[in-house]
Formats: sequence, structure tokens, C-alpha cells
Amino acid sequence: MTPAPIRILGIDPGLRNTGWGVIEAQGSRLSFIACGRLRPDVRLDMGERLRQLHEGLMSVIADHTPQEAAIEETFVNRDPQSALKLGQARGVALTAPALAGLAIAEYAANLVKKTVVGAGHADKTQVQMMVRVLLPLSAATSADAADALAVAICHAQHRALREAVG
Amino acid sequence: MTPAPIRILGIDPGLRNTGWGVIEAQGSRLSFIACGRLRPDVRLDMGERLRQLHEGLMSVIADHTPQEAAIEETFVNRDPQSALKLGQARGVALTAPALAGLAIAEYAANLVKKTVVGAGHADKTQVQMMVRVLLPLSAATSADAADALAVAICHAQHRALREAVG
Repeated sequence: MTPAPIRILGIDPGLRNTGWGVIEAQGSRLSFIACGRLRPDVRLDMGERLRQLHEGLMSVIADHTPQEAAIEETFVNRDPQSALKLGQARGVALTAPALAGLAIAEYAANLVKKTVVGAGHADKTQVQMMVRVLLPLSAATSADAADALAVAICHAQHRALREAVG
Repeated sequence: MTPAPIRILGIDPGLRNTGWGVIEAQGSRLSFIACGRLRPDVRLDMGERLRQLHEGLMSVIADHTPQEAAIEETFVNRDPQSALKLGQARGVALTAPALAGLAIAEYAANLVKKTVVGAGHADKTQVQMMVRVLLPLSAATSADAADALAVAICHAQHRALREAVG
């Protein structure tokens, strides 16, 4: 029996650029729905920037009606002050789907690369290339949107695996 | 002429404990309105914890109708991973008042202490004591709520100063 299709929202959070991508998965069959990038106005105060990010994500969810969300577990090797700022964007990226009632999965960056490219140490270009192979219609996408689509693909494959096992 | 009274929401953000306090300021006269602490369920996933925090802050704003918000600029001396987590809570603490249309001011921890206690290196107990002196009705408050009230007091005094100068 073919499983019901499910829409997945992938998010690659960042204060300057938050990539997002929506795919539809039916078992192992994936199709591209939409993707894009949110860029809150850097001249605004932090609260306003985060509000724009929040409202942008809420619009994406309203427009493309995903049922589940997947976010990259951010690997932080920078100074605490940068980590705090990234955390602020990430807090918004987790809260918006939670408010919309979506289940949220988090995946380590290495696992995303390993799932999509086959190697945990793949670079951004390889990820972008494989996203184009797996989702041909997403060709015009930015690097941020490609990363977001990669997280969504990772989630689709891991949930298909869980369903096959379960 | 007596300036119009204004309600200020102070927030001391944290993932485990977010303190909040609402005061009313009329020129230099301060009065206590309400305070409390939000403690999202630690057994839940991050998205759900942040959703609880978001909804808790939105309720506080709806219940006590502050017009402005003040948040402590978090001083981060810990590892990047802790800073990221604190950032997530802070992102929610900035987004909620921004969504409610409140102007948001940020104050460095040292400035808050200096304004409230008179010394930038004051400890938590001294802050709590001075908050009780300045806002007698807030006596029963937790340390987190006292910190949040201290940020609100700091904002009240700085905006009164700005109005006196301007």
C-alpha cells in the first residue's frame, strides 16, 4: 500500500538568512513544492528582525501547509556572542512551526550531509548539487534554500525508514 | 505637568526560568503591577518548550497590557552551546513583545545593576533587596522575577531621564 503523501518544511535558520524549503514525500518518492529565503531587514532592532522572521515563517506555513518540520541542529564552533545571536534566530525557527502544531525533528548537520550526499563531510556545493538531482524542479534555489531542502529530504528519508522498520 | 503613566514589561529570559515583571511609571514614581516566572516543561522537545514560553509571554502581555518592554542584554561567558540555548529563549522573549507591537529596549546587565542598586557589580541579593525597596508590593517575588522587575525599573528611570532632557 502506498503511504499517504506528507509535506515537510525544512528550515536552515540564521539571523541574516533563513532558508526554507517545502517538499512532499510519498514513501521514498520526493517532490519539490517551494523554497525561499527570509532576510529580515538588518537596519531594524533585534525584536523587529525576529518578528519579521517569525511572520515570514508563519506565512510560509500558511501558504504551503506542511505537516512536519525539520531543522538542522546547529553546530556551533564560534564565539558565545555569535552563538547567542544564532540561537535567537533558531528560537524563532523552532517556535513558529510549534505554534502551527507541526511536529519538529532536529538533525545534526553531518547526518543531513550523509543522508543527502552520502558523505558527512560534504561541502555546500555538493549538497546543492544533490538537492538538484533529488528535486529537479528546485534548480534555481539559493544555497540557504538548498540547505533547508536538504534537511527536509533528510527527514523524509529517515521517516520512510522508520515506517518501513515499524 | 505630570507625564502620562506608562506600563513597562521587564523580561529576564532563560530556557528553564524566564522571569517577568510589569510596573507602571509616572515620571519617577513607580508602582508594582505584577510579576512571575515562566518555566516551560523540561521534559518536552525544544520546539514545545519555546512554544510554551512564547504563549506564556503573550498571555502576560494580554493580561497586563504593557506599552513598552525592556530586556537584559545577556552577558555570555559560557560555552557556545549554552549560549545557543540561551539565545533560543532570548529570541522568543524578543519576538513576543515585538509581535504585540511593544517598543523594546535592551540594557546591559551592569547598567541595570548600576541603575537599581547604584553599583555595576551588585549581586543578585542586593538587586532583589533594592527591588523590594523601590516596589514594596512585589515582596514575595522570585530571584528571576526580581531581575525582570530590575530591568523594567532601569528602563523607567532611563526613559524619565530622556524625557527630562528632551
